[in-house]
Amino acid sequence: MNENPNWFEARFSPTAALRLRVTRRLYETRSPFQTISVFETVDFGRVLALDDVINVTERDEAIYHEMLTHPALFTHPAPGRACVIGGGDGGAVREILRHGSISSAVLVEIDRKVVETSRTYLPAVSCALDDPRLEIRFEDAAAYMAGMREAFDTIAVDSTDPVGPGERLFTPEFYRDCRRALRPGGILTAQSESPFFDPGIVENLYRSARTAFDRVWMYTAVMPSYVSGLWSFMFCSLGPDPLRDFHEKRCAASGLDLSYYSPGMHRACFTLPSSIQRRFAHVLS
Amino acid sequence: MNENPNWFEARFSPTAALRLRVTRRLYETRSPFQTISVFETVDFGRVLALDDVINVTERDEAIYHEMLTHPALFTHPAPGRACVIGGGDGGAVREILRHGSISSAVLVEIDRKVVETSRTYLPAVSCALDDPRLEIRFEDAAAYMAGMREAFDTIAVDSTDPVGPGERLFTPEFYRDCRRALRPGGILTAQSESPFFDPGIVENLYRSARTAFDRVWMYTAVMPSYVSGLWSFMFCSLGPDPLRDFHEKRCAASGLDLSYYSPGMHRACFTLPSSIQRRFAHVLS
Repeated sequence: MNENPNWFEARFSPTAALRLRVTRRLYETRSPFQTISVFETVDFGRVLALDDVINVTERDEAIYHEMLTHPALFTHPAPGRACVIGGGDGGAVREILRHGSISSAVLVEIDRKVVETSRTYLPAVSCALDDPRLEIRFEDAAAYMAGMREAFDTIAVDSTDPVGPGERLFTPEFYRDCRRALRPGGILTAQSESPFFDPGIVENLYRSARTAFDRVWMYTAVMPSYVSGLWSFMFCSLGPDPLRDFHEKRCAASGLDLSYYSPGMHRACFTLPSSIQRRFAHVLS
Repeated sequence: MNENPNWFEARFSPTAALRLRVTRRLYETRSPFQTISVFETVDFGRVLALDDVINVTERDEAIYHEMLTHPALFTHPAPGRACVIGGGDGGAVREILRHGSISSAVLVEIDRKVVETSRTYLPAVSCALDDPRLEIRFEDAAAYMAGMREAFDTIAVDSTDPVGPGERLFTPEFYRDCRRALRPGGILTAQSESPFFDPGIVENLYRSARTAFDRVWMYTAVMPSYVSGLWSFMFCSLGPDPLRDFHEKRCAASGLDLSYYSPGMHRACFTLPSSIQRRFAHVLS
């Protein structure tokens, strides 16, 4: 599919793709789980691709990582212990550890090679992986989560698409285990795919989550390097409401210099385009 | 550039493109102003392209046309007379004429062939072009606007990119003429390109508008078929403030069954991603 070494094609579907000029191939390996590649592009800077799907680009990774994490962390009244599932690049962890209230965080990544690759080729993304508050575990996140009880205030599911290693992270069983792994009042957020291009995948994921959580919201952000640009995130809560319980003053006073998220964006991102609101109303609370 | 007839490449930059599988070529012509083509795609339905740039797709045109028009029409207290610049496909006019208060509208399109093509191949977009309230003028919009005085409550600038026939619609002179063509309290909205991919073009456009309007806002929508997915719109006002003066009750009571815009989206869409807010703060009011 990517036979021309000067171009990378990120397939959105069998019949649509984002095509990017590659100026330099930096790395490629086959781990036990997936193909990992890193290359330079003109428009998005360095790109980390997993099985030829764009996972992280230097140009827009901050949007994704900020939006996966801060809405939960500024809704929870005092997040102390956080977990990231997947996310071996380290971007989600970087955002979480900006919060002074976080005393410890666990990153559960099945593929050690992703962490190693990010450390070597994406220093601005992986920069917080040596934070002393962080424990990195290389194991299957579904198995790990099944053994946890009331361990975390927040869980961020930074999965790949529901094929290959990420598949179990889209099942009802996984969400029931996550629910048990959350402390009272805990919050889970997850990347939840493109509601424009893959509404069936999105619906199945929310159905899985609703078997475990009564309160589930969808919010969105614009990710230029991802399918359709419109990316959705899922917010599952054991208590706090992302709008009513948003700690706006704490957020405004945090001094975080971010690329996308802000107090205003926290409120705006839960407003869905009408057709998406209608399409998914039955799986949202 | 689009040498393979089975694929269409919409270039975002010299080094990035959206590639779409074409299932059927329906029409292609060269007008005095541009190349016009219509083809079927799997992912976006029918596509109208002008000089190989995607102008309208069946799948997401409603997002663009709703967002170009309704924010102004639900901010103005009683829009009666409206003007659309460009927009020969008829989508913007279709949205404007949904407003019962509109007594007359003018569509000023330089290229008669665009209107004819849309009538033939995009009936759901061009469906309001025979509305008795509408006057269609095939002429240069910049010249037309220079002759108008206090003629319109709203102007919607549905231009192509600032190359070719659309270029004059990005100049300070054009915005000064538009200001004079607005009635007191009037509002102009314009598509204002991709702030992610083309910040320089966006900045120049806002600078042009600021020479004529004291009050200029940016708002955004997600357009999956456009460069980067993140599309911006410019809101220039001779009076009403899009947030403070938004007629939310009228909007909620309108019964419009839309694909993207809603009362909630009206409020949300003016919240810009932090980096874009910072980048363009100096040209916004």
